[in-house]
Amino acid sequence: MKALVLFSGGLDSSVCLGMAVKKYGADEVLALSVSYGQKHVKELEAAEKVAAHYGVETIHLDLGAIFEGSDCTLLQNAHGDIPLEEYADQLKQSSGKPVSTYVPFRNGLFLSSAASVALSRGCDEIWYGAHADDAAGNAYPDTSPAFNAAIAQAIELGSGGQLRVAAPFIDQPKARVVAEGLRLHVPFEKTWSCYIGRDRACGLCGTCRDRLEAFRLNGVQDPIEYERNL
Amino acid sequence: MKALVLFSGGLDSSVCLGMAVKKYGADEVLALSVSYGQKHVKELEAAEKVAAHYGVETIHLDLGAIFEGSDCTLLQNAHGDIPLEEYADQLKQSSGKPVSTYVPFRNGLFLSSAASVALSRGCDEIWYGAHADDAAGNAYPDTSPAFNAAIAQAIELGSGGQLRVAAPFIDQPKARVVAEGLRLHVPFEKTWSCYIGRDRACGLCGTCRDRLEAFRLNGVQDPIEYERNL
Repeated sequence: MKALVLFSGGLDSSVCLGMAVKKYGADEVLALSVSYGQKHVKELEAAEKVAAHYGVETIHLDLGAIFEGSDCTLLQNAHGDIPLEEYADQLKQSSGKPVSTYVPFRNGLFLSSAASVALSRGCDEIWYGAHADDAAGNAYPDTSPAFNAAIAQAIELGSGGQLRVAAPFIDQPKARVVAEGLRLHVPFEKTWSCYIGRDRACGLCGTCRDRLEAFRLNGVQDPIEYERNL
Repeated sequence: MKALVLFSGGLDSSVCLGMAVKKYGADEVLALSVSYGQKHVKELEAAEKVAAHYGVETIHLDLGAIFEGSDCTLLQNAHGDIPLEEYADQLKQSSGKPVSTYVPFRNGLFLSSAASVALSRGCDEIWYGAHADDAAGNAYPDTSPAFNAAIAQAIELGSGGQLRVAAPFIDQPKARVVAEGLRLHVPFEKTWSCYIGRDRACGLCGTCRDRLEAFRLNGVQDPIEYERNL
């Protein structure tokens, strides 16, 4: 096995999966999806569909126990609701702290888990779909370029040089991820991004807003259905 | 809660726990122990005893699923035996790669898990007992000073500055860890370090050798029993 793709069933990681399969072939790619106690399983269902589309082996980890005690609003045990304002407004309310949908050190934990699985399965690359719009003005500090550089270095050093992190969109906006996905015919209609887990995407949460805007910038309509499309 | 101590029940992390309790008091310290599919549970039993000695709350995570597929000789699913030679000889056999007891990216995974738990529980410090002898000539690349610096930076950045990693022995030899533990009356007799899980410590595996030497350098006898004490 060559490459492990950290894979949520969302748009960004689905494009990464498409790129890795194109480069190495489905037999050399392993998709790792992680549940972490989130309120809905829509993205995990999406992950299964997209992985089946590409015919890659998938591994699923349940790391929900790690976040027991967290009050992140994406999690089942949270008290608050998922906010539907733009990130700039959310950041004003959080006084510079991460927003309420920040899952504590999630990306660090997922990438470290990916490193352990990749080494265990003989992969030498970890792919993940972080992009330049992810940090959303420090709403999610575990997506900043500085964080990404540090964790990639930790993984390379901590694996004794056996692993390398590939983040092909790290300095690109989300619109560029959509553009690459369109070029590679990634099955966007099978992906799921919305934080709310209803039948259709809400169109209002932070991730819906970002996704809709990225399609808009490409002059293309997002093939998934929305309750509301601003 | 103030500090989370990454805590295996071994000598180094027990000294860290003793230091954190002395600094903040038992009520402000959370001990996190992790099982990862290792062949025996002696160190987890030791962790319970030492945590009970200090009266701190403990959290236990089972991350064994992450290492399915690994052939690390510490793990239940491995085919090979735990080597009993000195690390220098093991490294010769592994041709510069990590030794067979290297658990894939274990420290990175454990520290990342610690970061997620610490943020979930409102701690702002992670303590762990890495020391300068740990890397054993790159036998364990996830213990090198360069790795430690990178992962500590990733945790600080990825938590939005909410977390800091305290590794009080990072540039000190293991003998210094023992010295500090003796000063603080850490219950060494309750700790467990040996890779082999028999009634008494083997005295021959890499970690027994290092532990015995650290006590010897302090002119003190290790209070635990050994099958063989070279």
